Amino acid sequence: MSKYDDVMKLALERGFFFQSSEIYADAPAGFWEYGPLGTSMKNKLIQLWRKELVKRDEMLEIDGSVIMPEDVFIASGHLKSFVDPLVECKKCKQVFRADKIISEKSGQIVPERLSEKEFDALISKYNVRCPNCKGELSKTKIFNMMFKVGIGAKDEKVAYLRPETCQSIFVDFPRVFRTMRCKLPIAIAQTGRVFRNEISPRQCLLRLREIIQAEIEVFFNPSKANEFEKFESVKKYKLRMWIDEKIVEISCEDAVSKGIISNKLIAYYLAILQQFYEKTGIKRENMRFRTLGEDEKAFYTKQGLDFEVLTSVGWIELVACNYRTDYDLSGHAKESKKDFSVIDDGEKIIPHVFELSMGIDRTLFCIMENSFEREKERDVLKVPFYLAPITCAVFPLVNREGMPEKAREIYEMLRKNFDSFYDDSGSIGRRYRRMDEVGCPFCITIDSQTMKDDTVTIRDRDSMKQVRVKINELNDWIKKMIG
Amino acid sequence: MSKYDDVMKLALERGFFFQSSEIYADAPAGFWEYGPLGTSMKNKLIQLWRKELVKRDEMLEIDGSVIMPEDVFIASGHLKSFVDPLVECKKCKQVFRADKIISEKSGQIVPERLSEKEFDALISKYNVRCPNCKGELSKTKIFNMMFKVGIGAKDEKVAYLRPETCQSIFVDFPRVFRTMRCKLPIAIAQTGRVFRNEISPRQCLLRLREIIQAEIEVFFNPSKANEFEKFESVKKYKLRMWIDEKIVEISCEDAVSKGIISNKLIAYYLAILQQFYEKTGIKRENMRFRTLGEDEKAFYTKQGLDFEVLTSVGWIELVACNYRTDYDLSGHAKESKKDFSVIDDGEKIIPHVFELSMGIDRTLFCIMENSFEREKERDVLKVPFYLAPITCAVFPLVNREGMPEKAREIYEMLRKNFDSFYDDSGSIGRRYRRMDEVGCPFCITIDSQTMKDDTVTIRDRDSMKQVRVKINELNDWIKKMIG
Repeated sequence: MSKYDDVMKLALERGFFFQSSEIYADAPAGFWEYGPLGTSMKNKLIQLWRKELVKRDEMLEIDGSVIMPEDVFIASGHLKSFVDPLVECKKCKQVFRADKIISEKSGQIVPERLSEKEFDALISKYNVRCPNCKGELSKTKIFNMMFKVGIGAKDEKVAYLRPETCQSIFVDFPRVFRTMRCKLPIAIAQTGRVFRNEISPRQCLLRLREIIQAEIEVFFNPSKANEFEKFESVKKYKLRMWIDEKIVEISCEDAVSKGIISNKLIAYYLAILQQFYEKTGIKRENMRFRTLGEDEKAFYTKQGLDFEVLTSVGWIELVACNYRTDYDLSGHAKESKKDFSVIDDGEKIIPHVFELSMGIDRTLFCIMENSFEREKERDVLKVPFYLAPITCAVFPLVNREGMPEKAREIYEMLRKNFDSFYDDSGSIGRRYRRMDEVGCPFCITIDSQTMKDDTVTIRDRDSMKQVRVKINELNDWIKKMIG
Repeated sequence: MSKYDDVMKLALERGFFFQSSEIYADAPAGFWEYGPLGTSMKNKLIQLWRKELVKRDEMLEIDGSVIMPEDVFIASGHLKSFVDPLVECKKCKQVFRADKIISEKSGQIVPERLSEKEFDALISKYNVRCPNCKGELSKTKIFNMMFKVGIGAKDEKVAYLRPETCQSIFVDFPRVFRTMRCKLPIAIAQTGRVFRNEISPRQCLLRLREIIQAEIEVFFNPSKANEFEKFESVKKYKLRMWIDEKIVEISCEDAVSKGIISNKLIAYYLAILQQFYEKTGIKRENMRFRTLGEDEKAFYTKQGLDFEVLTSVGWIELVACNYRTDYDLSGHAKESKKDFSVIDDGEKIIPHVFELSMGIDRTLFCIMENSFEREKERDVLKVPFYLAPITCAVFPLVNREGMPEKAREIYEMLRKNFDSFYDDSGSIGRRYRRMDEVGCPFCITIDSQTMKDDTVTIRDRDSMKQVRVKINELNDWIKKMIG
């Protein structure tokens, strides 16, 4: 079994995540949800994002609506450009992306953003037919990937489910900047759900139609992107960059001076992003930043890098790092006729934007794959202690001699501070295995010695070694270990 | 100005919350969003819900998809019954709820759930016309309040934005119960966004189209609703019940023995809910539970109580407490042909459900209204310390003599543990006022004595009294005060 399958099996059997509305046979693909263990781990991951990025950098966090009016997406360009060119097989009715199947047939690179007629001409030129049944293809249709909703009793207002959280950050920028008395540079963050009508959702959390994002938009004066004090704190830190088909470790200062990264501000945010990922337990050797080619970038991006992680199904993009320039703020200023300029050292400017757009679901999957290990006698999820869905498990060694009562007492004490689990069923070995596979770092056993001297054993998940700790020191001991 | 207006003004001026997409003149009503201070306070409120309800009661928490397929809402009854009967004025084109305007004209109580023809007959009988322009009314149309979305390249799958979070709890129940090795009774909780195409959204956070809910579904064996050990811990606790047009304080045990509340399990959950609200800073005298009449209950409810809070615009429902019986689980079992039964002490049953369905946005608004006070020289938001959006503010008394550097150092120390804010602009009095109105409990000033003996002043928000505390004891002092 591949690691992908191992993680899927674990996720389903222990309820980390599973398909939404799975009891209904024809529920649409691309929707997954988190059971109790997945929810706990996902919430801890978002807390880590808050601690290591939002709070570390003194960002502001907002929480905006999922439904946004059409005007927003006219201004942002999504109505026109967030599209896939699709063709349908007239015989088997399957739907394909025109650029993909033309490219497969012709061996040529086909840009995503041609007109319907241009795609039709290429289909005809290369005599492209259905890859499945060789049937004839329909005319190309440019398909918008946003979900549309009608608001009001007669659906009179057209709106869309946001395809990225950042649009509310842009739209709210004037009020947030003013009411929080901001100065440039300032970053605004948001986490929440976004929606994309993907044609081929697949690979569980890796390609979804409903996605949890955590986005950071950094607003700055482009003429000062190299006057950036915080850069000092990361200048020696080494980024893992994909250059000439291999990974190169290069310090932030070298990357900027050699022009690999265009300025200090961007280098700083890439550095704190990679540092965040080092804290998720994803192995450093499985990380890279890859600069995107012209044909890969989103329509709003001037320069783009993907932060990618190596998994059993290849390199997966976890964070899109986009230099969006003043594209979004200027777009909304024009469409709304509102003023989006700010004063920076006496100069009136429209700020530029650099973004870190993170996929939380994908990140969670990659953390699980990177930390899953199959050992001789057990499966174990070696996630960092602070991301484990359950922090402590409490077991009475046997269900007599006052041990269950004592164990309950300890469990009640611990669960005030930590995600805790009580288990008194099955052999102690089996109870350990159940906790190992969900990554619980501390299994606490109450045995006959406990009844004499008020100490318990704590078994370390990774080394499987046991130590004895006094009950009244347990809370502090665990707090210290979590760090 | 009413308190409602005071809170609105504060919310807009300090960016707690404001209309979504406000820069666009024709953005639809009923969508609001949280700026940085609102997001901080809202997240703390959800943390309090987790601590005082979910964790206290050892509930499981899940996080499901917002988009759910049509099958779910056939089974739940929402497709048929989550409807409003609407009429439109043929002249001025305004839309009204048929039951409301017939009732206003006739003085009679009109049930919500008549057929279109029955409404038309009543309109004709009472000669009801447009309340605004006296125009003639259209035929009644039964309007479903769910937002519809099409999934796939040809919108081939019909789905809806969930109108309540609990449907994923019901649909996921078999897997969660099995994978978490549950026993009855067990509660499953979820917080997230839900969507309702309200015809008349109004009063900012009080009637929205996009709502943040926090729902708890308690699954239990109905024959054991009075064998419920946890009840012991609340039996003397007094609920505030609306009985015979007045509020009566009655202990849980009296409420059950007198048949005011139907069993111990329900009484327990109402008690811990009211205890939660006491911790939000909403005044006890402004709370009540009100039993719903037949004509007020949701279609899935056998018995319903609303937890309501008194505001400047009247009593507002914050939590719907519904005894949903086995309505939902049986509905999904029938529609999906899956087994939803569980074994409870050897007996095979479909569990019954009691729910606490909380509106987070409304709750936040009520907390702000209940804690806002206009004093002679200041506005102050007396929220509990643990809900304050900013916990500590750090001020250098003057911007010289090393005070700003020292203040920065203290700010850097505090912001690792608390939501902190640094302010060095304007008079100290003005800085205090700015923090008072957003509820910051601790303003810490660095003055000339600090430079001599490493102590600072902490000013208490409510009493405005100052104490001197040593810098190296600050963290612990604040932690202790928050409790």
